[in-house]
Amino acid sequence: MTDLPNHVEIHEEGPREGFQIEPGPIPTANKIKLIEALAETGLHHIQACSFVNTRLVPGWADAEAVVEGFKARPGVEYTGLFFNGNGLDRALAFKDKLAIHGSISLTASEGFTRKNLNRSHSENLEAMRKHSSLQQSKGVPVTRIGVMAAFGCNYQGDISPAQVISTLEDGLAIAAETGATISLFSLADTMGWATPARIERVIGEVRTRWPDMNLSLHLHDTRGMAVANAHAGLKMGVTRYDSTVGGLGGCPFAGQPKAAGNICTEELVLLCEEMGIDTGVDLDALIEVGRLAEEIVGHQLPSELIHAGSLAAFRRKAA
Amino acid sequence: MTDLPNHVEIHEEGPREGFQIEPGPIPTANKIKLIEALAETGLHHIQACSFVNTRLVPGWADAEAVVEGFKARPGVEYTGLFFNGNGLDRALAFKDKLAIHGSISLTASEGFTRKNLNRSHSENLEAMRKHSSLQQSKGVPVTRIGVMAAFGCNYQGDISPAQVISTLEDGLAIAAETGATISLFSLADTMGWATPARIERVIGEVRTRWPDMNLSLHLHDTRGMAVANAHAGLKMGVTRYDSTVGGLGGCPFAGQPKAAGNICTEELVLLCEEMGIDTGVDLDALIEVGRLAEEIVGHQLPSELIHAGSLAAFRRKAA
Repeated sequence: MTDLPNHVEIHEEGPREGFQIEPGPIPTANKIKLIEALAETGLHHIQACSFVNTRLVPGWADAEAVVEGFKARPGVEYTGLFFNGNGLDRALAFKDKLAIHGSISLTASEGFTRKNLNRSHSENLEAMRKHSSLQQSKGVPVTRIGVMAAFGCNYQGDISPAQVISTLEDGLAIAAETGATISLFSLADTMGWATPARIERVIGEVRTRWPDMNLSLHLHDTRGMAVANAHAGLKMGVTRYDSTVGGLGGCPFAGQPKAAGNICTEELVLLCEEMGIDTGVDLDALIEVGRLAEEIVGHQLPSELIHAGSLAAFRRKAA
Repeated sequence: MTDLPNHVEIHEEGPREGFQIEPGPIPTANKIKLIEALAETGLHHIQACSFVNTRLVPGWADAEAVVEGFKARPGVEYTGLFFNGNGLDRALAFKDKLAIHGSISLTASEGFTRKNLNRSHSENLEAMRKHSSLQQSKGVPVTRIGVMAAFGCNYQGDISPAQVISTLEDGLAIAAETGATISLFSLADTMGWATPARIERVIGEVRTRWPDMNLSLHLHDTRGMAVANAHAGLKMGVTRYDSTVGGLGGCPFAGQPKAAGNICTEELVLLCEEMGIDTGVDLDALIEVGRLAEEIVGHQLPSELIHAGSLAAFRRKAA
């Protein structure tokens, strides 16, 4: 089952994940500074902000100001997260600057859907049916199905691969009903339940069912397994990963106030580089941006690599 | 090359690694408290202290008081680290309480040997020849060869598998000359250069050369790769790992003041458990000891798992 890719596509979500959870307030100018610095490292996809309820997520009350403020670098795709019609409209106001991709967001755990969205799974399916139609009707093609808690859930425990398959089938049914063509499944380890063995099992079963679908992994480092999980994903041939510079972010679920956020972008890049997999990213430049991220949030971030420095830097010194 | 073990032997080095590097001072009573708590978790090997130069390592000036103070739990092996005759004598004073294993400690990087020991490789071989004879003459059988910087070095850059093989051959020559029988090679990623691919390559080449030798890995998490590296080791059938509770320790080498220490014991145990590999450790109890370690050192430790809690705890809640 080893199928090492030549190239991996990294979707940097540090600004969005980080600034939604930092107690802050973080000045808008610093958010812009981080986004612009990330774009200089060779990253091609940056999730720059979140168009969510500003009362629930005050850290993104300045989403519009951030998007207006940053200078877009040619060749870099910037996105903003949205979950409903209001968020979509706020994103569409920046359609010349942001890439707007439609998505169907589901959860493999009904327990999590209830806790996080206060909906049953079937109520969530109905909401996503409407949301998919709305996106399509506004000229935003829905091309992606996201599955949260795909590897386990703090509220429901283990999640079987069959449950993930069934959730993806629900998503494909919504896509069919709403005239959407899906080209990507994104599987999220929202609460840090994945292990390499579980990654292999779930990816293996999803691949068997849909051999030609593009897959993406969104891995949280809640229990320290994220790099090992990414390594398992790479060996399974998964070519797209979400990550956050410095490991920005955290886990707002189930009483884990000090829990880690996403896999660190720079550790993912190091892993890929040392396996001969191209990411397009200048790791030394990225490490500097990780240090900038630490300055901006004002506390140490989970990334070990930004504190240790790259291997390349030591190789140059030793040569 | 996959050869998953049924059981893994964990050598807990948290007290030794942690208290040698914490700015402290840490009260002797707290060191004892941690050692005793670790022994209650099902760990069978605990490196309790370091008999090193107390001027260079003031954190272990109280090594004797610690060993005198802790109550040994039957079935648990306690050790103390020593590098020279003086350290050996200090350890031998506690031969009824400590297990005293002889060792030949080498480094695959001459650059590191010079920086760390102020010796050339051949001067170090000569010192180790004397040290091996001394240990044997004092009734301490030398059974282990340790190789530091086996995966790379901040001072010398990449280390080839051939260099590791050659260093092991040097060690075996010393063993033969001094009448020692080696049963274990311990390979240390002292400065965090290992990646899963490198683990596979080095272990593969060492195995090919010495198919029947027991292997042990000592993995530092300097660049966030330790869990992924342990996973690679497990898949290669390596059954013994050093680790530290909470990720106690750090990296005193080459200007990495905030760099992480060893792989966290509890993350290693989680990884093993989720792969169906027995460790004998009660993970929930160990997580509590990780939290105790944080209290004792007075700052957040690198372990993500002690902040997030085990999967078992959430499984019980969800059931």
